[in-house]
Amino acid sequence: MRGSRDPGLGTRTRDRSVVAIIGLGLIGGSLARALRRRFPRRALIGVETNARARALARASGIFDAILPRPTETLRGCGIVVLCAPVPAILRLLGPVSRQMRDGAILTDVGGVKVPIADAARRAVRKGVSFVGAHPMFGGEQGGFAFSRPDLWNGGRVAVCIEGGERAALARVARLHRDLGARIVLCSSAEHDAAVAAVSHLPYVVANALALTARDSGALARVLAGPGFTDATRLAGFAFEVQGRAAASNRCLDKAIRLFRRHLTRLDREIRRPSGGALFDRASAIRRALVRNVAPRRRSS
Amino acid sequence: MRGSRDPGLGTRTRDRSVVAIIGLGLIGGSLARALRRRFPRRALIGVETNARARALARASGIFDAILPRPTETLRGCGIVVLCAPVPAILRLLGPVSRQMRDGAILTDVGGVKVPIADAARRAVRKGVSFVGAHPMFGGEQGGFAFSRPDLWNGGRVAVCIEGGERAALARVARLHRDLGARIVLCSSAEHDAAVAAVSHLPYVVANALALTARDSGALARVLAGPGFTDATRLAGFAFEVQGRAAASNRCLDKAIRLFRRHLTRLDREIRRPSGGALFDRASAIRRALVRNVAPRRRSS
Repeated sequence: MRGSRDPGLGTRTRDRSVVAIIGLGLIGGSLARALRRRFPRRALIGVETNARARALARASGIFDAILPRPTETLRGCGIVVLCAPVPAILRLLGPVSRQMRDGAILTDVGGVKVPIADAARRAVRKGVSFVGAHPMFGGEQGGFAFSRPDLWNGGRVAVCIEGGERAALARVARLHRDLGARIVLCSSAEHDAAVAAVSHLPYVVANALALTARDSGALARVLAGPGFTDATRLAGFAFEVQGRAAASNRCLDKAIRLFRRHLTRLDREIRRPSGGALFDRASAIRRALVRNVAPRRRSS
Repeated sequence: MRGSRDPGLGTRTRDRSVVAIIGLGLIGGSLARALRRRFPRRALIGVETNARARALARASGIFDAILPRPTETLRGCGIVVLCAPVPAILRLLGPVSRQMRDGAILTDVGGVKVPIADAARRAVRKGVSFVGAHPMFGGEQGGFAFSRPDLWNGGRVAVCIEGGERAALARVARLHRDLGARIVLCSSAEHDAAVAAVSHLPYVVANALALTARDSGALARVLAGPGFTDATRLAGFAFEVQGRAAASNRCLDKAIRLFRRHLTRLDREIRRPSGGALFDRASAIRRALVRNVAPRRRSS
């Protein structure tokens, strides 16, 4: 707790800029740390069901109030950010929106956007604007213990253009931009198609590579080097976060089908003595795709 | 050129410890730099067909002689290391061994060992001992320009136990150990099975991921983040090196088949509402497999 002794936030409760973060894992915790660093005097509420994470968050001293569940305290917030795994976000949209005041903004950080946008249309109460967003970064190691104030810095955040009103959309974009992220405006459908290819498919593939290596003799463990480590890094992500998001992505099926087809083509190509052109093309495509990733850790 | 003015190496020619490195790319160049740093006075011969690479190597000042092709100068060498792509290694084994003296050792750094061991049995002349080896490291960016004296430091080198005599095997292991690498003794067959799973399959898969992302809309380029970058890093490797080695690996087929099966299982698992156990298992397997990779950049 900082500033206020009143768990109800005292005089700061009515401040329109009060932000609540629901779910204090790596992303929620890092968002809180980044906000606290950027806005030392803004009121910040954390909501977390897990007692241990709550204790860590309390010890960090960056929150004005920490609650075990969403309560009417949310009525004092201008923005509420759902930082939970996708299934929890889907469940929370309705109940949380009903605790928020008219004109407030509800947003999220879920890794899949169409199912959340669909659920929001049905469940978020009138008077509250919902805007979906997705920070395109994170880390293998989840939990508040790994949260960092610089996670937003130089990263990209997809903000979905449908749903919310223009003002709410601008407000959510500003929230992330203020913390050093670059904003990518897109539709939920565009987001899910792209993320299926650049995140959810690679996550499933990384797991398949790990299972294959296990079946390939004891020496695999000894000879696995930096190449294997990087190729399978996504398999280190928690299923409850990454797997559930991937499972909800309706574009994952198509991405897996496409991937299988390309694997077959490459498998054929590699056997041809004069083969290689398709690999060279893939290599060039990859270079173009990751060209913009390098500045990741720099301030934008 | 250093030390000697005579391209024939002068008085150092007869030194049993003269090392020749054939192929001055990233690996050959880094091996030369590491040897030069560790053994400032040992004679070092470089052989490189490419004139530009030869000029770079000459400018580095670490070689006593640089030749455009293997010549009888190799007769002065105790160890000759083939640092070329796999197809070139296969071609060079016979001719190079015929230019070496009795009792000398021929070794290589090729990424696949059974085809090279088979070819060596047929092509390497009697009197020369062949020992296959494979440094399990490298880099996306090939060429002498990217060579570094610390590449061996803390890395692993597989040294194949069949073929060479005991003394030759020990000598090749010492060559790499002296430069800071840890030695993994194994058969060529064990090596190829493991490397198919931890290197060649991930290489093909990384290329397939890149092709899939290209087909998934313009937003993929914008949303590709550090996860995609790492998952596809191996696609950045040159086909002439990594692709040719993978193509020669007789275990690649089996690895691809296994991988497809695991992908199907994971695809099924992810759809089950209570699924996730197989992903958790893959994640744990991956953790165990890469546990020993971390000390990569430290001295062993």
